[in-house]
This record gives sequence, structure tokens and C-alpha cells, in this order.
Amino acid sequence: MEILENKKWKVLKSQYIARKPWLTVRQEELELPNGKRIPEYYILEYPNWVNVIAITKEGKFVFVSQYRPGLGITAYELCAGVCEKEDATPLISAQRELLEETGYGNGNWSEWMIISANPSTHSNLTYCYLATDVEPLSGQHLDETEELSVHLLTFDEVRELLQTDQIKQATHAAPLWKYMATHPVQQ
Amino acid sequence: MEILENKKWKVLKSQYIARKPWLTVRQEELELPNGKRIPEYYILEYPNWVNVIAITKEGKFVFVSQYRPGLGITAYELCAGVCEKEDATPLISAQRELLEETGYGNGNWSEWMIISANPSTHSNLTYCYLATDVEPLSGQHLDETEELSVHLLTFDEVRELLQTDQIKQATHAAPLWKYMATHPVQQ
Repeated sequence: MEILENKKWKVLKSQYIARKPWLTVRQEELELPNGKRIPEYYILEYPNWVNVIAITKEGKFVFVSQYRPGLGITAYELCAGVCEKEDATPLISAQRELLEETGYGNGNWSEWMIISANPSTHSNLTYCYLATDVEPLSGQHLDETEELSVHLLTFDEVRELLQTDQIKQATHAAPLWKYMATHPVQQ
Repeated sequence: MEILENKKWKVLKSQYIARKPWLTVRQEELELPNGKRIPEYYILEYPNWVNVIAITKEGKFVFVSQYRPGLGITAYELCAGVCEKEDATPLISAQRELLEETGYGNGNWSEWMIISANPSTHSNLTYCYLATDVEPLSGQHLDETEELSVHLLTFDEVRELLQTDQIKQATHAAPLWKYMATHPVQQ
């Protein structure tokens, strides 16, 4: 398989057209290697994101559900969040988010996948973790504007959610389908 | 497993702050069921997207590679694109994109997965297809601002790309990992 050369496009102009707490947009004029120009290309800047497939000692998957305004749906999701500036590593962000959103912690953590919601428009990466043998440590500690329920699901329930397209968030479906591909039966 | 009630948030204000060809942003003031308000929430409106796992009669996977300015990388990807207004269905969009970007067509098509790049911020869905027994019909017909190479990969090469996190686009990694979960060996 060919190793791809990184054929970077030339940035002719670059300016921020939005720099708000939850929306940072860079508008660029770009030139392709073939000389063609794209006068207005938009890149969305975000901090890195994290999520975690967290499984308890009893083999239950720690899921959350919450409302998502973009699609207008309430859906099952992995516990997920944002890398805050004070987090030394994405792993620490993921452990913090799991504890805050679900009250679960400890266990054995490993990096599971690094992906992008959309590499054409997003500047950031999503770090996905697998955490086994997690246990309840405390209650939820949610932000004021988070309304989020915790669900303990079986392996078969997670598989059913995937097969019926109920895991809508691609950055969650990808690590979960990888889990199914590498763990065809519950272990 | 609990069927989730859709706990919609109330939209108190809504206005477009950008309506450009490739960037449409809606700014909303939202109220959660608990009464808390989010003064500025941003929703990115896009047309629906499509992609396709296309496999030739010889069992080769039709991939493309192109530069992605958000992450600044050239990466292997599925053939993918946008549902144009003149496309009657997402299936037709996917078949059009495969033919335009790679020259491949015909074959047996089925809907494989419907996901979202990010349901909290994106208004649109991505329709993923599986197309088997596709065959070369013509050359590429690219837009002026597309520079894109076609690659025929083996099952093992696709698996290696997935295992080494080289499929960065989550809306591509999810259907491909689903393929690996449901086709543990090449068929």
C-alpha cells in the first residue's frame, strides 16, 4: 500500500471571522497543487475532544443519554467531553469527564482510537479510550447546562444500539464498532 | 433497555450569523428542561452527506486519498460527498459521487449506516452505503477544486489502515469498522 505524500495546500489568506467561546471559524483562501484557488474555505477550530468506552467489573457498559440540538434528538452516547486547558493529557480529560458525568472511575485505561469528526473542516482530534473494571466512586457533578442520564447497558444492548443506528455520533460509533470487531463475544 | 424520551430544549431566539455557500451558522438561545439557559449555542447547517464502501468483483476496496485542510493531512478515505439538490435520494448522490470521483459504478447497493459527524452541532446526517461488485465504467470527473487519487486496496490493507488509525474521518471509520465486525474474514 502506497505511503501517501502530504500534498499540502498553500494558504494565501487567513483570518478569523468568529472567535466566540464555542465557535471559532477561520476563513482561508487556499491554492491547490494544481494551481486552482478556493477563495473561501472555512475551518472550525475546537480544542481536542475525548470519549470513553467504560465497562464495569460486572461487564456493564457505562452510557449516557442527552439532548443534542444539532439533530434535535435525545440519544445514547459514550461519556465524552472536551480537553480543558488545565488537563495535562487527553487521558486525564477522559477520566475527569467520566467521573463528572457518571460518577465512575478507577479501572484500567488504554488509548483505543484517535479520529476526527471531520478532517476537512475541524482542526481537532477526538481521543477515544477503553476503560475496563471501572467502579462507582461518587455521584454526578454536572455543569449547570448539562442534563444527562447515566445508563448501564449490557454487551447485547450496546450491539443492538449499534445495529439499529441509534448511536448517531460518528466519533462514538467508530470506537464502539471497533470494540465489536475485536470482541465478537462478551469476555 | 429504556426507550429515551426526546427532552427537547426550547429555542428562545434563533438567527443566522453566517449564510455562505460552505458555512451556514445558526445562533440560538436555548432553555433546558431544568430552566437553565444557554445564551449562545451554534448550529452548523449542512446538506446531508454520503459515503460508500465500494468493493470490486475482484474483492478490492475502492478508496480515495486527498488533502484535508482542517487537520492538514492527506489521508485514505472512502469515496464521499454531498447530497445535491438535484439528487432525488442519498443513494443517487452516493452513486454519482462514486462515478465522478473514481469512475466506478454498477454493482449491488445497500444502505449500511446513518450517522452524524456531530449531533450537537451539525444539522445533517451522513448516509453510508455498501456497494459490492462495482466495476470501472469511466475515468474520473472531478470538480476543478478536487485533487483526489484512487486506490484499490485489499481487505487486509483496509484492516491495517483501520488498526493504525489512518482512517481519521469518523464518518468513514464507523461504517468500515462495522464492516470488519460483520465480515471477520474476507468473503
